[in-house]
Amino acid sequence: MRNFAIIGTGAVGGFYGARLQHSGREVHFLLHSDYDHVRRHGLKITSPEGDFHLRKVNAYKSADAMPPCDVVCLTLKTTANHLLPEILPPVTAPNGVVLVMQNGLGIEKDVAAVVGPERVMSALCFLCAMKTGPGEIHHLDYGAIRLADYSPYGTPMGVTQRMREISEDFRQAGIRVELVDDFLLARWQKLVWNIPFNALCTILNVATDKLMADEEATALVESIMQEVVALAEADGRIISEDFVREMIYDTRKMIPYSPSMKVDHEKRRPMEIDAIYGRPLQVAEQKNVSVPAIEMLYRLIAFIGRMDAVEADSRKQQIITDDP
Amino acid sequence: MRNFAIIGTGAVGGFYGARLQHSGREVHFLLHSDYDHVRRHGLKITSPEGDFHLRKVNAYKSADAMPPCDVVCLTLKTTANHLLPEILPPVTAPNGVVLVMQNGLGIEKDVAAVVGPERVMSALCFLCAMKTGPGEIHHLDYGAIRLADYSPYGTPMGVTQRMREISEDFRQAGIRVELVDDFLLARWQKLVWNIPFNALCTILNVATDKLMADEEATALVESIMQEVVALAEADGRIISEDFVREMIYDTRKMIPYSPSMKVDHEKRRPMEIDAIYGRPLQVAEQKNVSVPAIEMLYRLIAFIGRMDAVEADSRKQQIITDDP
Repeated sequence: MRNFAIIGTGAVGGFYGARLQHSGREVHFLLHSDYDHVRRHGLKITSPEGDFHLRKVNAYKSADAMPPCDVVCLTLKTTANHLLPEILPPVTAPNGVVLVMQNGLGIEKDVAAVVGPERVMSALCFLCAMKTGPGEIHHLDYGAIRLADYSPYGTPMGVTQRMREISEDFRQAGIRVELVDDFLLARWQKLVWNIPFNALCTILNVATDKLMADEEATALVESIMQEVVALAEADGRIISEDFVREMIYDTRKMIPYSPSMKVDHEKRRPMEIDAIYGRPLQVAEQKNVSVPAIEMLYRLIAFIGRMDAVEADSRKQQIITDDP
Repeated sequence: MRNFAIIGTGAVGGFYGARLQHSGREVHFLLHSDYDHVRRHGLKITSPEGDFHLRKVNAYKSADAMPPCDVVCLTLKTTANHLLPEILPPVTAPNGVVLVMQNGLGIEKDVAAVVGPERVMSALCFLCAMKTGPGEIHHLDYGAIRLADYSPYGTPMGVTQRMREISEDFRQAGIRVELVDDFLLARWQKLVWNIPFNALCTILNVATDKLMADEEATALVESIMQEVVALAEADGRIISEDFVREMIYDTRKMIPYSPSMKVDHEKRRPMEIDAIYGRPLQVAEQKNVSVPAIEMLYRLIAFIGRMDAVEADSRKQQIITDDP
């Protein structure tokens, strides 16, 4: 039976890892600030699909202490990806795979540089969840994964044997998994949602419902989505009009949701600006595609990020000063 | 000796009107919420150029009660311009002029429709001032006026006799006045500053200094200014590279300043979105000029404006409900 590592036990890692353990899998969790709490009290999940409490989990403060795992779920924030060369080698079994469950574009390539391209898979998470306290995750809605195999040349890999096997593990944990041929198409499709909503909700300080209740804001969202579609097309991936319409429709009926970027901004934590905006804009530059709306969002959100960093620093200074 | 009307005694109207009265002119002030206070206590100006207190001013609650004036200074917020057909006719003397001292594009045309084009002049105010309380205005910096005569066809009118006369009144009140040939060029030049800073400071919740301290934000400001320059050019007005560079330079050495739009947003008051963004964008559409950055700023700030209106309404409801 395959064992699992969860690299980064936030809302995403905590939710999927807890579900896997709850279904009987062996799971090893890498933690940072919540380590002490989780080692003592385990993980608590509240969810419309049923609450549960794992009183004992395998918690680690360092990847070096973890056993080699067959499936390494990469659920760190991308802003910590500079740590991957330290973290991934010890925890990834020789025939193991790293599932890139992070947001954004081009992360697979970075992971491939560390563990080799044959040990990389993409797993796009469609999950509304939030960490409500140390070791406490509140699952709000959704939770499906789109699983794909990775190729360094962007070639669609079809449905492979290991995709089927790993998806079976998730399915037994009550997670809906869709197997997709083409990881790059899946990445662009996810960006169709992430690019407009992350920046707009953060800049305008609203959850998704306020944008969807406003006709002109919805039109703005749609026009940004169209730029993502154009960019994907330049990258060789066709996204249909229907897909855009469905995204709008799904968001409209979704519960009011604050994207992770907004939550990060509120807590003055680093935002995933490079993964969600910076890298797509690099593609725009390479392919010579004009995406003025995305560029403006990037420039606004990057400024907000720099201001957040200054504020977070001064808060930290404050804490050090206040320390008796 | 010419008498003056101040239509809207906020920071701009209060400052120039008080200076004119202080220099010995007859001035009549139209007020709204501050009427009772100003009638009793007059106007107080604090300024690096000298504080003064006018204990008695001619205060009016309605334009019908005002005498006909030779120079009518239009200093209302443009969001109240639907009131002009009621306000301007009684207060503008038959040979009087209305000085359009408001922000934005195309206001002269609206005023001309009410009082006739021959009674319209443009007066662009370069003033950092704020109302700090009823009848209290704090002058921070600057204060110069660029005065131009208006032509309904946009023809530069040169320096006219009445421009010289009126500028003399302002100069005696300690106001620097520059006489300019071409009101439309002056309008576009002012928009070069107003378009980037009003929206950016409001959306990003910062004063001008934070943008000027950040290299990439300064580059963003400059790229938005370039769009305004392109739009002005399509409207037949050439603004030089040097002008843009000077604007950046001047703003950098200016005291940290919150543009009026940011102050309005903080107080959940209507913002001058149509005058500063809506009308320039109409020109962009007519002239078929692509201005994606301005358009994005407009869409973001317009959404913020709609949210502000909802909140202001609910606060008003609250006050009504709380009233015993």
